[in-house]
Amino acid sequence: MLTDIAKAYTLYETDVYNQDGIQGYAYVPHEISVAVSDPQKSDIPGTNPEQLLGLALSTCFNATLQAIESEQGLEHRASVNVHVKMIKANTGLEFLVQARVNIPGVSQAHAQEMVNQAEKRCPVSKLLSGSPNYSVELVN
Amino acid sequence: MLTDIAKAYTLYETDVYNQDGIQGYAYVPHEISVAVSDPQKSDIPGTNPEQLLGLALSTCFNATLQAIESEQGLEHRASVNVHVKMIKANTGLEFLVQARVNIPGVSQAHAQEMVNQAEKRCPVSKLLSGSPNYSVELVN
Repeated sequence: MLTDIAKAYTLYETDVYNQDGIQGYAYVPHEISVAVSDPQKSDIPGTNPEQLLGLALSTCFNATLQAIESEQGLEHRASVNVHVKMIKANTGLEFLVQARVNIPGVSQAHAQEMVNQAEKRCPVSKLLSGSPNYSVELVN
Repeated sequence: MLTDIAKAYTLYETDVYNQDGIQGYAYVPHEISVAVSDPQKSDIPGTNPEQLLGLALSTCFNATLQAIESEQGLEHRASVNVHVKMIKANTGLEFLVQARVNIPGVSQAHAQEMVNQAEKRCPVSKLLSGSPNYSVELVN
């Protein structure tokens, strides 16, 4: 892996900050700032790590599917829903992350093949792939 | 793991959607919608999976540190910077994710112990912990 990375080149980099903790703001200077709040306190407005992770994964996974569709001469029709659940287990707090992919207009087998390929190519999916809490499924 | 999860209870859940791919919007119905765009096309406004993942991790990690500070009777002073790099490697596109934690007002050893504990407790950190592309370090 280290050898691979040494041979790699950087396409983009960004720095993100959180100073406040669960209530306040998280931001990229001059680019984006989001209000965050405890998801269990629904009276305080703000997004949370669950939603932000879902936004990252759904966008990355669908962008990868879009690239695959383009390579195959298909119109972009895929969509991705990410369901994130926070649970209290005997290992402490855990997030369960399920990506649900819909690809209309192609056969079930073709759609499954595209999902399998996206799962191996999407950088966020690769980061999560070592976790038993992460799964991907094709839905209609 | 499955047994653990069967015994667990759900504290929160959310559904996130991306239909557009890399350019358009990702959203949680009635809660948050973010414009997204290709990070390599800096002329098109929008955030991207790299920043969204950094927002998720920095907030989750700092919320965990905040809980640890509170348990130890300390004021919240920790801050988290997440550096995300997209690289092109021979394994395809990869994200390298580095969390840099600063905890002023405690000894280096104490701060390191808090970081180690947060790394094991933060749900987003746990999801990423199987990846060689993820690292956490204490910074001054």
